[in-house]
Amino acid sequence: MIRISEIFGPTIQGEGALIGQPTVFVRTGGCDFRCSWCDSLHAVDSRFRDDWRPMHATEIWAEVTRLSGGVPLTVSLSGGNPAIQPLGDLIALGQAQGYRFAMETQGSVARDWFAALDLIVLSPKPPSSGMDSRAGDLAACLAAAGAARAVLKFVIFDEADYLWSRAMAASFPGLAVYLQPGNPLPPPGDGPEPDPDTPDLLARMRWLIDRVAADRWFSAHVLPQLHVLLWGNRRGV
Amino acid sequence: MIRISEIFGPTIQGEGALIGQPTVFVRTGGCDFRCSWCDSLHAVDSRFRDDWRPMHATEIWAEVTRLSGGVPLTVSLSGGNPAIQPLGDLIALGQAQGYRFAMETQGSVARDWFAALDLIVLSPKPPSSGMDSRAGDLAACLAAAGAARAVLKFVIFDEADYLWSRAMAASFPGLAVYLQPGNPLPPPGDGPEPDPDTPDLLARMRWLIDRVAADRWFSAHVLPQLHVLLWGNRRGV
Repeated sequence: MIRISEIFGPTIQGEGALIGQPTVFVRTGGCDFRCSWCDSLHAVDSRFRDDWRPMHATEIWAEVTRLSGGVPLTVSLSGGNPAIQPLGDLIALGQAQGYRFAMETQGSVARDWFAALDLIVLSPKPPSSGMDSRAGDLAACLAAAGAARAVLKFVIFDEADYLWSRAMAASFPGLAVYLQPGNPLPPPGDGPEPDPDTPDLLARMRWLIDRVAADRWFSAHVLPQLHVLLWGNRRGV
Repeated sequence: MIRISEIFGPTIQGEGALIGQPTVFVRTGGCDFRCSWCDSLHAVDSRFRDDWRPMHATEIWAEVTRLSGGVPLTVSLSGGNPAIQPLGDLIALGQAQGYRFAMETQGSVARDWFAALDLIVLSPKPPSSGMDSRAGDLAACLAAAGAARAVLKFVIFDEADYLWSRAMAASFPGLAVYLQPGNPLPPPGDGPEPDPDTPDLLARMRWLIDRVAADRWFSAHVLPQLHVLLWGNRRGV
């Protein structure tokens, strides 16, 4: 059984390597991290665990098929940390019908089924998160992913995060890098979502672009969270 | 000699397939089209031709090298229509030093040197432009580009543009497709740039995402113009 927080779409992937691409999100419930600025607490904090529905891979697949009208697209596996759920059967079911699977994880837990993914996004958490992401754990995830395409994504709030990300990226020179300004007003998880401060988010993005340009870190990409710009901190879009 | 409107950067590519990637822009002056909503009139309208500087490829290359500190990145060739300038020597100069070259053109004019590009973005103009982009001209550009990576980009203002783009894309099933909501408040070319109507731009983006989802056009990407969100209609960023 897989613990599911929400399944929604089609919408676009709003971040990172697949930005702009139509996708259905499958968000699992539960996480081994608890980042200070988590923007998906409803899928992380155990006080929401009663909202997470245990589902068979076949049930999840029926819902993805319904939402996508049976037309293959990329399914985005997100969380929480989807790596702590048994997702191999779901991936096999979908790929048999021509769907592709991308997963985002902090890279703390490696699984054999990573090798079946079409894309694995490793998003280690920088110092501002209060977590301790380790290069060794990422390396284990990459080893599990084998020949699957892998990229790095870093959420950056400040100079310390930036420098940490730059050093971590240097440990994995073969991986494309995506930098994303952090959103300091995440949803509280319950209650109404606060509106994001869009001018502040865009200022953070400009700062990050200037930072990368000044360092001539030309192999990095800098991208915003399109979902936050388009829909604020709303869920299910 | 190459007629240059402006050279600036490093900044990020704000649109399409290379969105988020650091780049230096080389914008040529002069265009064989005159789109009703052109957002680069300063590089298109012949009343600005005295602002376009004739430069040798070596001069342009010296400026790109200065701006990028000699660290290889992707150079974005834009315009105007860069295809009406002789850019083969510039591309050869840069590639010899490890730089990559992406060019965006409406696809009205084909050149042999397209084959040297790392990416050619064909951006045929939909009905709202008042121009007449033809599939046959795009096919000639693709033939010239040979094995170079090619993608399609469509600027979409309304339903007619959307349907036209969908039909045009269907003629080139091998190409990745990028859809971009149009910006109805382009700079006037001279005088102060008007501020973009950001809420309107984001609403256009949401409409386009809904449109693609409703049609299950899952092979298309939907992306905004990040530059307009970040810097308004300012030039040189």
